[in-house]
Amino acid sequence: MNISQRIKEVPYSAIRKLTPFADKAKADGKKVYHLNIGAPDTKTPDEFFDAIKNTNLKTLDYAPSKGLKSLMEKTCEYYKARGADFDPNKDIIITTGASEALVFALIAVSELGQKILTSNPFYSNYYTIFRQCGLNPVTFDTKVEDGYRLPDYETIKNAVTEDTAAILISNPSNPTGTVYTEEELRRIVRVAKEKDLFIIADEVYSEFIFDGKTFMSFASIEGIEDRLIILDSISKRFGACGARIGSLICKNQELMTEVIKLATGRLAVSTIDQIGATALYNVDESYFKEVNEEYEKRRNLIYEELKKIEGVKVYKPEGAFYIMPDLPIKDADDFAMWLLTEFDVDGETIMIAPADGFYHDSNEGKSKVRLAYVINQKDLKRAIEILGIALKEYRKLTNQ
Amino acid sequence: MNISQRIKEVPYSAIRKLTPFADKAKADGKKVYHLNIGAPDTKTPDEFFDAIKNTNLKTLDYAPSKGLKSLMEKTCEYYKARGADFDPNKDIIITTGASEALVFALIAVSELGQKILTSNPFYSNYYTIFRQCGLNPVTFDTKVEDGYRLPDYETIKNAVTEDTAAILISNPSNPTGTVYTEEELRRIVRVAKEKDLFIIADEVYSEFIFDGKTFMSFASIEGIEDRLIILDSISKRFGACGARIGSLICKNQELMTEVIKLATGRLAVSTIDQIGATALYNVDESYFKEVNEEYEKRRNLIYEELKKIEGVKVYKPEGAFYIMPDLPIKDADDFAMWLLTEFDVDGETIMIAPADGFYHDSNEGKSKVRLAYVINQKDLKRAIEILGIALKEYRKLTNQ
Ligand SMILES: Cc1ncc(COP(=O)(O)O)c(C=O)c1O
Ligand SMILES: Cc1ncc(COP(=O)(O)O)c(C=O)c1O
Repeated sequence: MNISQRIKEVPYSAIRKLTPFADKAKADGKKVYHLNIGAPDTKTPDEFFDAIKNTNLKTLDYAPSKGLKSLMEKTCEYYKARGADFDPNKDIIITTGASEALVFALIAVSELGQKILTSNPFYSNYYTIFRQCGLNPVTFDTKVEDGYRLPDYETIKNAVTEDTAAILISNPSNPTGTVYTEEELRRIVRVAKEKDLFIIADEVYSEFIFDGKTFMSFASIEGIEDRLIILDSISKRFGACGARIGSLICKNQELMTEVIKLATGRLAVSTIDQIGATALYNVDESYFKEVNEEYEKRRNLIYEELKKIEGVKVYKPEGAFYIMPDLPIKDADDFAMWLLTEFDVDGETIMIAPADGFYHDSNEGKSKVRLAYVINQKDLKRAIEILGIALKEYRKLTNQ
Repeated sequence: MNISQRIKEVPYSAIRKLTPFADKAKADGKKVYHLNIGAPDTKTPDEFFDAIKNTNLKTLDYAPSKGLKSLMEKTCEYYKARGADFDPNKDIIITTGASEALVFALIAVSELGQKILTSNPFYSNYYTIFRQCGLNPVTFDTKVEDGYRLPDYETIKNAVTEDTAAILISNPSNPTGTVYTEEELRRIVRVAKEKDLFIIADEVYSEFIFDGKTFMSFASIEGIEDRLIILDSISKRFGACGARIGSLICKNQELMTEVIKLATGRLAVSTIDQIGATALYNVDESYFKEVNEEYEKRRNLIYEELKKIEGVKVYKPEGAFYIMPDLPIKDADDFAMWLLTEFDVDGETIMIAPADGFYHDSNEGKSKVRLAYVINQKDLKRAIEILGIALKEYRKLTNQ
C-alpha cells in the first residue's frame, strides 16, 4: 500500500507553498497586493449570470458528453468571425476548461512514457498534467534578453527526441506574455512537419493582444489541419475562470472519434456553466476591445515602472497579462517568502510567483518572477513601487 | 504522428453506438422508452436553482483548488449525520464528479501499468478511466444466479496479482444494483489488509437502498482509515448529475497532500455548481425518503414484471436503480439494435444497454442487459411489457 511515485514526482505549486504566508500576513493586518494569480479581475459579462438565472431547468441531467450543441455552435461562430472554419458537428468537444482539453489531447497523441516538446519556461500546470498522463517534457530555452522569443529552427528541431509525440505551444505565452509572429509559428510548423509531430496550440489568451496587432492563430496556417489541436477556454476570453468551460478543437476526425471516448468516460461537462458560456458569446465585440485596452494600459504601466527599478531586466510583452522580469537577486523563492513574512511598506506588501516553478530542469528561473497584472492600475502602480523598495532593502540585507 | 494505441484500446460505449439508431427511430415517429441511461429523472431540489439564482457574484474567479469551504463543510456534515467523521479541513477535496475523484485516487495509489481489482461486471466507465490512468483491471466474477453477490474470500484474494494496487468497489453496484452486506465488506477489507491494498469505495448510490435496510459504508469499518478512499458525488444523491460535483474523501493525510497537487494542476471545480451543491445539503431528510420510496416501487415493479417473462433469469436488487437480468437470447447487442431498428408495438419500443460493455474479457455479458429504472412507473410497466413481446418475437425470428 504505497502512495505512488508518479504522484510524488509532481512538484508542489510554488504559489500554493506561499499561500499560508500570505494568509498570515493578511491576518496580521497587512495589505497584500496579488501579482501571483492568473485570473482576470474584470467583471464577467452579465450575459452569463442572466442566462443561468433565467433557466427553467427542473432536472439537472448529464449534458451530452460532447457538449451542448448551442455552445459548440457559438464557439465555432466565434472562431469563424476570426477567420477559422470549424464544424460544430465534428470539430469540437466541450471540456472542463482548457485544462481537461489538454489531458484529452495528450492521451490521444502519445503513449505512456513519451515526451512533449514545449518552451522553457512554460505554464507550470503543464508539468502536473504531463505527469498525470504518464509523460515528460522536453524543452527549448527562451530568454529574457530577447523577450522570450522562440529560438531558431535548428534549436527547436534538435530538442525533438525519438519519442517526442507533440509540440505544445502557449501563444500568447503564459508565463512570459510573448506573442509569436507568423514567422515563429511557421518555424514550429516546419519542425512539426519535419519530425511528424502533432501541434497542440494553447491559445487561451488570444484576446489579449496589444499595440493594435491582430492575433495569429495556428488555425490560420494551411496544411496542418490533421496535426493541429487547439485548446480553447472561456476562462480568460470572458473573465469566467470559475465556469470551467473549454473545448478541444481539431479537424482530424480519426482523432476526434477517439477523444469522444474519453469524454464519454467522464460523462459530461457542467450543464449550467455550458448554458452560461453559450450566452457569453452574445456579448458585443466592444467587450473584447474594452478589456484589451485596460490590459494594454496595465502592461504599459508595469513595463514602465519595472524599467525604473535598478538592476531589473525587463522587456515589453505583447499579450496575455503576464511579465517575467529578471531581478537583481539570487533566489526569488526566498525573496517572495521574505516579502510576505518580514517586509512591508506602511503595512503593505506584495505576493509574487517565483519563476522556478515555470522552468524545467533549469536554474534559469532562480532570479526571475512572474507578475500577473490583474489588478487595477492604481494598485498595480503601488505594487511595483513596493517591489522597488523591497528589492533595495532585500539586496542590502542579503548583500546582493 | 500517430493517434495513440492507448486511446484506441478504449472501447466505444455500447450505448453510444446505439444512440444514432434511437435517434433515427424517434425521427421515424417511434416512441422510445429509455432504460439505458443511469440518470435519475426525479426533479433536482429547488435549493440548487434558488442558490445560483440568488448569487451576487460579479467576477467568476477560480474557486480554491480544494473546493469551496462551505461545500466541504456541508459534505462532511452529511457524512456525520450518517455516522462517519471527516474533517472538512483535511479529509476532503471537491472534484468534478466522482469521475474525477476516481482519476485522482487511481493516480495517487498506483504506478503506470499496474492493476486495479474490481468485480466483473463493473461500471463501464471504470475501464476508460483505468486506461486513461495507464492501468488495467483484474476482476473476480459475480453471477446473476446469486444476485451478483461477492464471491468467497479465497476467490477474491486469488484474483489479486503482484502488481495490483487497489480494490475498487461500487456499492450499491452499478450495473447490478446489489448492495453488499457487512460481511461482504469485511471480506473485501480482509483481502485488502492481507494483500496490503488501498480500498477505493465508490458509494455514489448510497441513498438508494430498499426494503428498509440501512446502507453500510466502508467508512464505518474501523482500522482501514489509512487505506480507504471514498468517491462521493451529488449526481445521484440529489438527482443533480449535470452539476458535475463530487469529492474524494480520505483520512490518509500523506495521500491527501499528494492529491492536492493534481487538484491544483486543473485549477478548480465550477464555482456556480459548488454554490448550488452547497445549498442542496439544506434539503430536508424527507427528500431522500421520498425519492427512495419511489425507486423502491419501481424496483418492485420491474422485478415483478421481469419475472413474468418466460426464460428471463432475474433477482431482486437491493439498491441503486439498475437491474441486470439474463435474457433467453444469445446476443443482447444484436437484440438491442433490432429493438431500435426493426421492432415496435403500436409505434413504441425500448432502448436497453447490452451488458457486454460492463464485462471484462468475458462472454458472460452476451445474454444480459442492464436496465435503469429511471422512468415513471406507468412507463416502466409498459416498457417491460414491450420487452416481453419483443423477446417472444425476436426468439421466434432468430430461432432461439
Ligand atoms: C496557458 C494556459 N493554458 C491553460 C490554462 C487553463 O485554463 P482553463 O481555466 O480553461 O482550464 C491556463 C490557465 O491559467 C493557462 O494559463
Ligand atoms: C458507479 C458509478 N460511479 C461513478 C459515477 C460517476 O458519477 P459522477 O456524475 O459523480 O461523475 C457513476 C455515474 O453513473 C456511477 O454509476
